[in-house]
Amino acid sequence: MIRAKIIGASGYGGIGIIELLHSHPEAEIATLVAMESVGMPISDLYPHLKGFCDKVVVAPDSPEAQAPVDVVFMATPDKVGMKYARTELERGAKVIDYSGDFRFNTAEAYAEYARRIGKDPAHDAPDLLVESVYGAPELHRADITPARRIVGNPGCFAISCILGLAPAAKAGLIRPGSIICDCKSGISGAGKKLAAAHHFPNRHEQVNAYKLAGHQHVCEIERELSLLAGEEQTVTFTAQVVPISRGIISTLYADLVIPMEEQAIHGLYQDFYGTDGFVRVFPSASAASIGTMQVRGTNYTDIVVSVDARNNRLRIVSIIDNLMKGQAGSALQNMNLLFGLPEKTGLDHIGIYP
Amino acid sequence: MIRAKIIGASGYGGIGIIELLHSHPEAEIATLVAMESVGMPISDLYPHLKGFCDKVVVAPDSPEAQAPVDVVFMATPDKVGMKYARTELERGAKVIDYSGDFRFNTAEAYAEYARRIGKDPAHDAPDLLVESVYGAPELHRADITPARRIVGNPGCFAISCILGLAPAAKAGLIRPGSIICDCKSGISGAGKKLAAAHHFPNRHEQVNAYKLAGHQHVCEIERELSLLAGEEQTVTFTAQVVPISRGIISTLYADLVIPMEEQAIHGLYQDFYGTDGFVRVFPSASAASIGTMQVRGTNYTDIVVSVDARNNRLRIVSIIDNLMKGQAGSALQNMNLLFGLPEKTGLDHIGIYP
Amino acid sequence: MIRAKIIGASGYGGIGIIELLHSHPEAEIATLVAMESVGMPISDLYPHLKGFCDKVVVAPDSPEAQAPVDVVFMATPDKVGMKYARTELERGAKVIDYSGDFRFNTAEAYAEYARRIGKDPAHDAPDLLVESVYGAPELHRADITPARRIVGNPGCFAISCILGLAPAAKAGLIRPGSIICDCKSGISGAGKKLAAAHHFPNRHEQVNAYKLAGHQHVCEIERELSLLAGEEQTVTFTAQVVPISRGIISTLYADLVIPMEEQAIHGLYQDFYGTDGFVRVFPSASAASIGTMQVRGTNYTDIVVSVDARNNRLRIVSIIDNLMKGQAGSALQNMNLLFGLPEKTGLDHIGIYP
Amino acid sequence: MIRAKIIGASGYGGIGIIELLHSHPEAEIATLVAMESVGMPISDLYPHLKGFCDKVVVAPDSPEAQAPVDVVFMATPDKVGMKYARTELERGAKVIDYSGDFRFNTAEAYAEYARRIGKDPAHDAPDLLVESVYGAPELHRADITPARRIVGNPGCFAISCILGLAPAAKAGLIRPGSIICDCKSGISGAGKKLAAAHHFPNRHEQVNAYKLAGHQHVCEIERELSLLAGEEQTVTFTAQVVPISRGIISTLYADLVIPMEEQAIHGLYQDFYGTDGFVRVFPSASAASIGTMQVRGTNYTDIVVSVDARNNRLRIVSIIDNLMKGQAGSALQNMNLLFGLPEKTGLDHIGIYP
Repeated sequence: MIRAKIIGASGYGGIGIIELLHSHPEAEIATLVAMESVGMPISDLYPHLKGFCDKVVVAPDSPEAQAPVDVVFMATPDKVGMKYARTELERGAKVIDYSGDFRFNTAEAYAEYARRIGKDPAHDAPDLLVESVYGAPELHRADITPARRIVGNPGCFAISCILGLAPAAKAGLIRPGSIICDCKSGISGAGKKLAAAHHFPNRHEQVNAYKLAGHQHVCEIERELSLLAGEEQTVTFTAQVVPISRGIISTLYADLVIPMEEQAIHGLYQDFYGTDGFVRVFPSASAASIGTMQVRGTNYTDIVVSVDARNNRLRIVSIIDNLMKGQAGSALQNMNLLFGLPEKTGLDHIGIYP
Repeated sequence: MIRAKIIGASGYGGIGIIELLHSHPEAEIATLVAMESVGMPISDLYPHLKGFCDKVVVAPDSPEAQAPVDVVFMATPDKVGMKYARTELERGAKVIDYSGDFRFNTAEAYAEYARRIGKDPAHDAPDLLVESVYGAPELHRADITPARRIVGNPGCFAISCILGLAPAAKAGLIRPGSIICDCKSGISGAGKKLAAAHHFPNRHEQVNAYKLAGHQHVCEIERELSLLAGEEQTVTFTAQVVPISRGIISTLYADLVIPMEEQAIHGLYQDFYGTDGFVRVFPSASAASIGTMQVRGTNYTDIVVSVDARNNRLRIVSIIDNLMKGQAGSALQNMNLLFGLPEKTGLDHIGIYP
Repeated sequence: MIRAKIIGASGYGGIGIIELLHSHPEAEIATLVAMESVGMPISDLYPHLKGFCDKVVVAPDSPEAQAPVDVVFMATPDKVGMKYARTELERGAKVIDYSGDFRFNTAEAYAEYARRIGKDPAHDAPDLLVESVYGAPELHRADITPARRIVGNPGCFAISCILGLAPAAKAGLIRPGSIICDCKSGISGAGKKLAAAHHFPNRHEQVNAYKLAGHQHVCEIERELSLLAGEEQTVTFTAQVVPISRGIISTLYADLVIPMEEQAIHGLYQDFYGTDGFVRVFPSASAASIGTMQVRGTNYTDIVVSVDARNNRLRIVSIIDNLMKGQAGSALQNMNLLFGLPEKTGLDHIGIYP
Repeated sequence: MIRAKIIGASGYGGIGIIELLHSHPEAEIATLVAMESVGMPISDLYPHLKGFCDKVVVAPDSPEAQAPVDVVFMATPDKVGMKYARTELERGAKVIDYSGDFRFNTAEAYAEYARRIGKDPAHDAPDLLVESVYGAPELHRADITPARRIVGNPGCFAISCILGLAPAAKAGLIRPGSIICDCKSGISGAGKKLAAAHHFPNRHEQVNAYKLAGHQHVCEIERELSLLAGEEQTVTFTAQVVPISRGIISTLYADLVIPMEEQAIHGLYQDFYGTDGFVRVFPSASAASIGTMQVRGTNYTDIVVSVDARNNRLRIVSIIDNLMKGQAGSALQNMNLLFGLPEKTGLDHIGIYP
C-alpha cells in the first residue's frame, strides 16, 4: 500500500484527496497535517467522514508529521510546498504540490510567474524545479513516471483552458495573440477561507469578474499552449465567479489561421484525446446538455467544440470539476502514474446526478 | 452476478439505482425500461453516464424488456408496480417497488392508504401484499431475506420520520397523539417532472409548505411507529420544500410520557442503531454541523437527539439524502438483503463535500 | 422632514433602513454611523446605492455622530443600544433599537432573557425600560404614539411566530404548553458577519438546525402570547437555516382546547388583522403558492391557516421577509407611528418577482 | 393618466411592467391580456400582487381587451406584436413591443434576422417597420419622442452588449471582426415557460452554454455597433446560463486599433454616458464588487472598463437586470419618452440588497 500524508488536510483540497484515497485500492492515508484544527478528528471538522476517516489532525512540527510516507500531497498555498519539499524527498517520499511552487522548471520561469502576481520572485528550492513536471498527464504522460519525484499539480482554471485548446494549439490552428479565456468558477475554487464575497447572501444571486489585472494561472496556460504550438501564445484571461459550489466552465476563443469546419476540428480533438482517458469531446449541438453538473464529482473534462464560421473563430467550452480535475482528481491521477498504476485507479467512478 | 432490470429508468429514481448498480461488485444492469426516451442511450439523456452506462432505453412492451432477470427495480409511481409485479415474480425475479403499492400487507390497509390520498382503493394484486415486506432494514432486517420476493421501498419523508422516532417509540417514551413531523425536502424529491413550483426562478428563493390536507407518507409512518410502540400513534405531518437539490431534514416532536434527559435518550438511540449500520446518532450540541450536506450522496441517516426539558418534549432532527436512503440507496440495501449479501455492499462510500 | 441617524449603518439592518428611508416622503438620512468602514461612502461598500446615497460613514465618537436628529435607528447587536439610548433621548431623538435591549419593560424581565441566552443579566439603563414598547404595531398600536420615545423592535423569528399565533392565543384556542415553533430562516438573518456555516460552498445545499439549547427570541414570543392568552404559554422553538438570502417561514403548531374547523379559525384571523394592514391571511389550500418569495422585499406577513382535525391541532404557516417585517420594515413602521404618520408611509410597495 | 394595456400579462415580462406601472405617478394599468389564466385575478397567479393589483386577466378576443388605451406593452414572443400592432395604432395607442418584431426598420433587415434564427422571414406589417425605433434611449433618445408610435424594445443580451461597447465603437477604437460577446444570463431570461434545463435540480449547480449556432440577439448588436462605428462590426456571441434568477453579465472583448490606456477609455465612457442616466461606469479595480446583485431590481447598467495591455485588447464587463434594463425597465423608460415624461419617472429607485 502507498502510504500518503496530506499537508493542508483541513481545506477543500485536503478533503478532496482524503475522499479519493479512502476508496483507492492501493493507497492509504497515513497522516493528516494542518495548521488549524490540530488535535481534532478530521470527522469532527467534516462529519460526512465519520466512520470512514476519523484520523486526528496533527501539527506540521509534531512527531507524527515527521514519519516517512510514500507520497505527500501538499494541499497548500503558494510558498509552502517549496519549503517542505526537500525534507520530504530526503525521507523518500514523492511530492505532489497543489500550488504554483512546482509548476515551472527554472528559477527564471518561477520568478516571472511570481512577479506577475505580486509575490516574491525568489524560490526556496530552485534546484528542485528542474526535477518537477507539470501534472497534466494528457500532455506529459511520458514524463510522469516512477522515476519522477515531484509534480506541480495544475491550476484549476489553467487545466480547463489548456486541455480545451491543446489539440488546436498542437495542430497549429491558432493565430498567436488571439486567445481569449473567459472562465467561470464555482465558489469552492476560492477554498474554505471566509470572504465577504462568498458569504451566502452576498453570493446567492451574484456573478462577477475579479482579478482583471492578472490571474495566477495565466503563466502556465501560456507556457503549455506555446509549447504545444511551437510559437508564443499569449492569452487574455478573465476570471469570473458563479454561484455554484463546484465546477469550472471556460469558454475559449481563438482566431483560426485558416478556415476549418467544426467537424474537422471535432475529429482532431477526438484523435488527440482518444476514448479511454478523462476527456470527452462533444459537438456544438450538444452544448446545452453539457455543463458543470455533467462532470461534478468526477475527474472528467468535457469539451464542446464549436466554430464561428462568420468570424473564422474557434470556440471551445471546457468543463471540469474544479475540486477534481482541477485539484484532487488530477493529484491522484498523477500519483497513480508516479507509482506505475493504471491512470484511472480510484478515479473511475460516475458522478452523482442531480 | 445479479442481473437487474430498472423500470422507470429515466427518472431520478432510475438514475440513482443505475449509478449504484454500476459500482456494485455483485450486480449488473441488464435492462433499462421507460415510457419516455425509448431508443436513446441513457447516457444521451444523462451525459454524466457517458462511458459508464450507454445502454439503450427500451419500451415496457419491447421483447428486450421481457427477458428474465434476477431483480426488478420498479422506479415508478403508484399503481404501476402492482400491475407488473406478478409477471416479474413468475419469471423468477424479485421485485423492489419504490411506490406505495407494496408498503402495506393487506388490501384493507392499502385501501385506507389509497383513500386518504384520493386514489382508487382497489389493489390490482391483493394476494401479493401478504408476501411483501416494508423495506426498512433497520426495523425489519429479519424479514428481508433471500426467502422474500417483494419489498415495498419506503417513502422518502417516511423513512426519515420513522428512523427518527423508532427508538423512542419502541421504548414507550411517546405520548400518543403528540407526534409532529415538520419535514423539509429538496426539490429532487418531486422527481424530474416539470412543475411551475420547481421552475428555477420560482424556486431559487422560495420555501413553502404544501399538501397540508394530507401527505401520502403519513400512513406508513403511523403504521410503523404504532407497531413499534405497541399502541396507536397518529402524527401531524407538514411537507415543505427548500431550494436544495438533495436532502430531507425532518424535525420531529413528541411529548415524553415521563421526563428524561437528552443523554439517556441519546444512549438509547445509540443502542438501538449500533455503530455498524447506516444510522449515525449525534447530541443536540452537534446540530449546527449536521445538515443535509453531511449525508449527500450516501445512504446514511444522521439523527440529532434533543430534549426540550421546559416542555418535557422530545425533539429529533433526522436527515437523509432523499434519493439515497430515501429511495435508491434503501432499494439497494434491500436488494443486498434479498440476495444474502452484506447490507452495505456497494453502498459503503463517502459522500462528496462541499 | 424627520432627520434620521443610523447606528450600525454598514450591516444588513442598516442597509435595509437606508433603502427604505431614501424613498420615504417625510424622512431623510442625516448620519450614518458604524464601527467599520469609517470614512468610506456607504455606496463604496454597497455599490447599488451609488447615486442614491453616497454619504460617508462616520465613527460613533466623531463630531458628526453627535449632531442631534429626530430618530435614531440602533441597527446594533445586544448591549449596544442600552449604552447609547439615554444620550440620544437627551438630545431629543426617539430611539428604535433592533436588539433585545428594549424588548422588555423591567430589569427582571430583561435579566431573565439575558440569563437564558448566556449574557450579562444587568441592564445599563434599567430606568428606561419602563418607557419602552415592544414594536409590534399589530398588537400594540395604541402604545406606539408620538408620546413614546423608545421602541424595542421585535426579533425576526419572534414577530413571525407572534403574529402567526396571536389571534388564536387571544381567542383562547391554545392549550398551554402545546405550542411548537418550527422556524426556518434565510441566511441574511445571521447578518453580514462571516461564518463558516454561511460560506457559500458550505451552505448551497445545506439545511440544518442550530441553537437547540435555546434561542434568544423565545422570551418575547412567550411573553406576547401569554399576554394575549391571559395565561402562561411556553413554546418549543427550533431555529433552522435554509439556503435562501431573505425570508422566514415559521410553521407553528398548537393543540386546540376544543375542536374547531379551519374555516372558523380562518375567519377569526381575518377579523383580527383586517384588510388594511401588513398581514394577509390565506386558507390551507393556498399553502403551495405562498412562500418566502411572496413577501420578499415587503413588510407583509403572509399567514396560512390550517387545522389537523385528526389530531385536533392548529397549524399555522407564517411567512415574512426577515430583513423587512423582521427588521427594517418593522422599524420604519414603528417610526411612522412614533411621528404620527400613516403606518404604511414609505412601506406600501410591491416586492419583485421572481 | 396614461392608460396601459399589457398583452402577455402573465409572463415575467408582464409582471415586470405591472410592478413598475403600479408605482408610476403618471400611468395606470387599464387591461391585462393573456392567453393563459384568463378569468383569474393576476394576484391569484402572483400572490405578491395581492392588494396591489387584483385585476382579472382577459382573453385577447374579449371585449375588455378591445377598449382603447394610450399605450400597449406587447410582452409577447416573436410574431405576435406584428399581428396586433396595426389595430392598436388605429385605436390611438402607442405600441412597445418586447420581441424582435419591431427592432428592424426594413422588411429586408427583418428577413435577415428571421432567417438567421430559423423563422419565417415574412413580416406581417412591413409598412410599420419604418415607423419603429430601436428602444435604446442611450443611443436613440432623439428619436423616441411623442411623435413616435412604435418602439422595438431591445433584447436583454443585446442591450447589455450594445451599451457595453457603444462608446468604444463610436470612438472608432474597435478593429472590425474582433468583437466577442461572452454573455451569461440568469434563468428568468428564459421566461416562465417550463423546461427540463430550468427544472431546479437540473439547474442548481449547472452552468452551460447554448444556442452556439446563433442567438436571436446577434443581429441587433451588429446593427447598432456598426451604426456607431460607421463600418461593419460582426460579433462572436456565446449565450450561457448561470443559476441566478435575475441578471446578465456580458464580458465583451475587442481588439483596439491603437494601444490605449484603461484610464483614457474609462474617461471616454464617462463622457459618453454622463452621470444622470441609467449607466454607471467603473474602473477595472472595482470589478470584484460590481456584479449582478448591484443592479438587481433596477434599470441600471453597470459597466466595468478594462484593458489587457499585453494583448492590446479592450475588455468590458456589462451588467444589467435582464427583467429591468433587459425588458420591463427599458420598456417603461421608452414609455416615458414616448409621452414626454422625464426618462427616469417611476424608475428611479434603489434595488434591494442582499
